[in-house]
Amino acid sequence: MSEFETGLPSVRLIQSYIKDKQQIELKLLTGDLLVGRVFWLDNSCICVLDASEKQILVSRQAIAYIKSSD
Amino acid sequence: MSEFETGLPSVRLIQSYIKDKQQIELKLLTGDLLVGRVFWLDNSCICVLDASEKQILVSRQAIAYIKSSD
Amino acid sequence: MSEFETGLPSVRLIQSYIKDKQQIELKLLTGDLLVGRVFWLDNSCICVLDASEKQILVSRQAIAYIKSSD
Amino acid sequence: MSEFETGLPSVRLIQSYIKDKQQIELKLLTGDLLVGRVFWLDNSCICVLDASEKQILVSRQAIAYIKSSD
Amino acid sequence: MSEFETGLPSVRLIQSYIKDKQQIELKLLTGDLLVGRVFWLDNSCICVLDASEKQILVSRQAIAYIKSSD
Amino acid sequence: MSEFETGLPSVRLIQSYIKDKQQIELKLLTGDLLVGRVFWLDNSCICVLDASEKQILVSRQAIAYIKSSD
Repeated sequence: MSEFETGLPSVRLIQSYIKDKQQIELKLLTGDLLVGRVFWLDNSCICVLDASEKQILVSRQAIAYIKSSD
Repeated sequence: MSEFETGLPSVRLIQSYIKDKQQIELKLLTGDLLVGRVFWLDNSCICVLDASEKQILVSRQAIAYIKSSD
Repeated sequence: MSEFETGLPSVRLIQSYIKDKQQIELKLLTGDLLVGRVFWLDNSCICVLDASEKQILVSRQAIAYIKSSD
Repeated sequence: MSEFETGLPSVRLIQSYIKDKQQIELKLLTGDLLVGRVFWLDNSCICVLDASEKQILVSRQAIAYIKSSD
Repeated sequence: MSEFETGLPSVRLIQSYIKDKQQIELKLLTGDLLVGRVFWLDNSCICVLDASEKQILVSRQAIAYIKSSD
Repeated sequence: MSEFETGLPSVRLIQSYIKDKQQIELKLLTGDLLVGRVFWLDNSCICVLDASEKQILVSRQAIAYIKSSD
């Protein structure tokens, strides 16, 4: 099944970021650092909204880490 | 099954990009940034049409993120 | 099963490249760009023939994208 | 199932780091070196607390190695 | 099952390299280029013998491509 | 199942390194070269002891190759 199943602590943490509209930093395996907030997540992707509310569809396989930015 | 099953929000977002002929930017794990529009997607690949309507068959495992370019 | 099952549009596109002896560019996750034509593909690899008809056995997991080179 | 099932020596080692509040270094595939202690782990992620007790949600697929830092 | 099952053309090509003691070049995702001959392969690894007949146990997941070096 | 099942030649080679306390070099996908000896392995990780007998828990997915260092 999914790597980020609903019951997982990591999924619940990300869901709390969604609910709280938490500003986050998302580091990618490319070295890119995305800044914004998590809009939603599914089994393949995390959708991030940047400062201008634009959607960035990020592959979960490409994520190194996520942390709150404040 | 597929990582991008039809019911997933991420698949539906990409399908909306296909339908709307949305210009997108696609960042790869190589660091390359492809610009064009999504022609189709299947379980392994996303087919991107560049500015000259040439097909680029992109492995989904190589994708870092996708966003609209306007 | 295989990531490139026979019915997939991406597999059918590659099979058309094989049949047409299409010159292609194949970008790898290493950043290398291979030029040649596709000889065959299976579930793990794509076999590329370079300009001197030498076989290069490319892991599919290492492929970023494929496009025709003309 | 999970790659880090409970019975695995590697999971038990990480669980001992959690219990002992062991300072660790965590090297990522990006080349980043995170320093802190392990807060918890699940099937997708390891949650690291940095020096200011901030949570960093690290994808396990992005980890190269972990070692104690003292 | 295994990604390199016995019936696959890619496995058969590598087995012919083993039988013929073919000198090969093996490009890794790290950018390293190993030169030697294939000693054996299993589901996880390819064992390469370098010029001094030393065994190098290469993860198949780390391979970009293999080609004969003559 | 595990990628490094007990019956595999690659697992048996690593187990011989453990038994013989063989000095090894371990190249990672990050480009790092670890030197030490293999302490144990499980389905996710290889535990390496460095020159000061410190444990380094290495993700198997991050390994490019292993070879003896003498």
